[in-house]
Amino acid sequence: MPKATTADLASEIMVRCQKLARFSEDRGSIHRTFLSPPIRDCHAEITKWLNAVGAEVSLDAAGNLRGYYPSAQNTGPRLLLGSHLDTVPNAGAYDGVLGVVLAVALLEALEGRRLPFGIEVIGFSEEEGVRFGTPFIGSRALVGSLDAELLGCRDKNGVSVERAIEEFGLRPVEIPRAALPGDCLGYLEFHIEQGPVLDHLGRPLAAVDAIVGQNRLEFTFSGHANHAGTTPMHLRQDALAGAAEWVVAVESLAQRIPGLVATVGFVDARPGATNVIAGVARAALDLRHTSDNARAEALEELTRAAGNIAAKRGLSLTWRTLLAQRAVPMDRFLVDQVEQAIRQAGCEPHRMASGAGHDAMILAEKVPAAMIFLRTPGGISHDPAESVYPEDVSSALGCGMHLLEQLAGSEEFLTKVHRA
Amino acid sequence: MPKATTADLASEIMVRCQKLARFSEDRGSIHRTFLSPPIRDCHAEITKWLNAVGAEVSLDAAGNLRGYYPSAQNTGPRLLLGSHLDTVPNAGAYDGVLGVVLAVALLEALEGRRLPFGIEVIGFSEEEGVRFGTPFIGSRALVGSLDAELLGCRDKNGVSVERAIEEFGLRPVEIPRAALPGDCLGYLEFHIEQGPVLDHLGRPLAAVDAIVGQNRLEFTFSGHANHAGTTPMHLRQDALAGAAEWVVAVESLAQRIPGLVATVGFVDARPGATNVIAGVARAALDLRHTSDNARAEALEELTRAAGNIAAKRGLSLTWRTLLAQRAVPMDRFLVDQVEQAIRQAGCEPHRMASGAGHDAMILAEKVPAAMIFLRTPGGISHDPAESVYPEDVSSALGCGMHLLEQLAGSEEFLTKVHRA
Repeated sequence: MPKATTADLASEIMVRCQKLARFSEDRGSIHRTFLSPPIRDCHAEITKWLNAVGAEVSLDAAGNLRGYYPSAQNTGPRLLLGSHLDTVPNAGAYDGVLGVVLAVALLEALEGRRLPFGIEVIGFSEEEGVRFGTPFIGSRALVGSLDAELLGCRDKNGVSVERAIEEFGLRPVEIPRAALPGDCLGYLEFHIEQGPVLDHLGRPLAAVDAIVGQNRLEFTFSGHANHAGTTPMHLRQDALAGAAEWVVAVESLAQRIPGLVATVGFVDARPGATNVIAGVARAALDLRHTSDNARAEALEELTRAAGNIAAKRGLSLTWRTLLAQRAVPMDRFLVDQVEQAIRQAGCEPHRMASGAGHDAMILAEKVPAAMIFLRTPGGISHDPAESVYPEDVSSALGCGMHLLEQLAGSEEFLTKVHRA
Repeated sequence: MPKATTADLASEIMVRCQKLARFSEDRGSIHRTFLSPPIRDCHAEITKWLNAVGAEVSLDAAGNLRGYYPSAQNTGPRLLLGSHLDTVPNAGAYDGVLGVVLAVALLEALEGRRLPFGIEVIGFSEEEGVRFGTPFIGSRALVGSLDAELLGCRDKNGVSVERAIEEFGLRPVEIPRAALPGDCLGYLEFHIEQGPVLDHLGRPLAAVDAIVGQNRLEFTFSGHANHAGTTPMHLRQDALAGAAEWVVAVESLAQRIPGLVATVGFVDARPGATNVIAGVARAALDLRHTSDNARAEALEELTRAAGNIAAKRGLSLTWRTLLAQRAVPMDRFLVDQVEQAIRQAGCEPHRMASGAGHDAMILAEKVPAAMIFLRTPGGISHDPAESVYPEDVSSALGCGMHLLEQLAGSEEFLTKVHRA
């Protein structure tokens, strides 16, 4: 394939992302939630592109746009490529959308050539969890976990997921038909990193080898609220001072353990007045690691540290778990292939974990999955300032093209059909 | 004076505090702000008690109730005794009121006997700062600092101090006549400690030798808000972690410097979500010491510490001062006399600073002033659970009686008239 084509396609990818960015619930900013009207505009636009390369387009009952590009044999196993079409409020133009547009461009780059496997491009209807507070509605339908409970979730207007599907003109009863067929070879997702790692390293692309597991907890230190002027230091049970000591301990542990990220995003002190010693301080903990063991050990150590700090200070301590999610490893074979394709595209590959959840995490329950991260300038995402470098998009496209060639030529890949 | 009388009077003091506690703006809890209707009820009740001991009662234009008990010569210098009649919302029955009721009881304990000085009992109209956000409206009138600015302050209904005075039937134009006469020997105030020190020491009474000076500031640490999952520890500029490190430093410094109290009552982290690294953290500092130098040095050290923490972490730091108030020493002669009187009343005296502001701090601008603190069980105040031990009230009354005797017999006291 001539170099010019890749660069042209890359530039077209940027144009298409900007075009989809105009479909929004809000004037002047990007905002597209599950099955909102601008999602329909995205579907129409992407359908045109898919039809133009000879893909057969359908919309499943969970609102996922699916374009099937047949194999050379017109039958047989398929490779899934995709990402999500929904956004957070006040979003950037690349989170999710870029992976779908890039997948379409890869079909175009084939210039009509068929591979030993079919390619299904998927634009997931929901990944961000904005409208219903629960993410991955689209990809859950593919693995069979879009269940009655999730269908019953309501948005702020009291509209359920089920009702939203009906209002979009789809039939919830057909959701089981959205499930993955039995002939899937794997799932590949291009996505912006949404973090600063690649930008900091000066590398355009990364092979994602795992999605981290995470815990979210709330720790509450309780002491005694007292007058800030009349209570000497040695007679205090200052809940905020205890929480602050623990925040420092959390950061310090995370700095010591490779791959661990631990964050306290807020400390809510009560009564919360300048001249009153805090009687209660509630601190949120977000803890992530690719190793579930390392994460469990860190959580145990941080809970012990909180207990020691509380005991030393005469505070009481309680905590509750808000989220506990295991790490999801990506498929080793596919990750190796991605790394090789990045190198083939002329880039030094970086291997890293994704600190955030993605549709690939859900798909991995049923099929071998891997992700390719594109450098995110400044690590800025979920913000109108979110961007990508056009040359990185060109590299990603090159990587994708090499990846398809590699997989098309791999006996190992073609003979393994997913375990579901 | 026979022991029985003191105990009887002490028990009557408790009854009277409870009686005044029924005069409230709120049903079921104690709440009396500046010149509210229940303040008038307090005035009526206390006036009856004052009249009964032969004191001449008047209401000054700032709403302070003033009862003058003449000297043996029916003329000459006077000693001021008093405290405030207003309360915080949901208050206890003793904060302020106890000092006024105890002063009345001291006149009763004289059983008609006149001293070489007159005694003026004052029930200040406003000390808590609840209604207008500015405290000491009553005592400011006595030292001449109830100025136009303060008169113009408005409550939440838009009513100014001036208008509130008029609505109570008083004439703001007469406020200058509320100023202290030139013959004041000193001001003594009995008040509950509102802190845990005496209760912790097991002592009923303290001689207050100073009101601490204080600073209130707001420190703002600014870094970068980032995704808690995708931002590795070494690429973070976590404003909350910086603020937390500083909170620990604040506490640690205050524990090292005798007499210093330093409090961070809240840390407000933004955006303040579990899965977002805080980009901005605003922390409130309350700093108090009897020595203005020690306080200034501590503030300098804490500001330097905040700067170092911010610099080390790549955060920026700003701060602003909300309050800077010098320490007010009590009159050395009077404090010694109070200490001696506590001992004469059979108690082991404790000498301490007041960590909170009191009317005595304002009066000290013009006359020698001192305070006597009564132990506050559990240090609990500004709460319906606020209490005093009846035996401590008895000791306080005994102390007050000895103090009057001491001062009546002190040539040094009688010949010194205040410096104003």
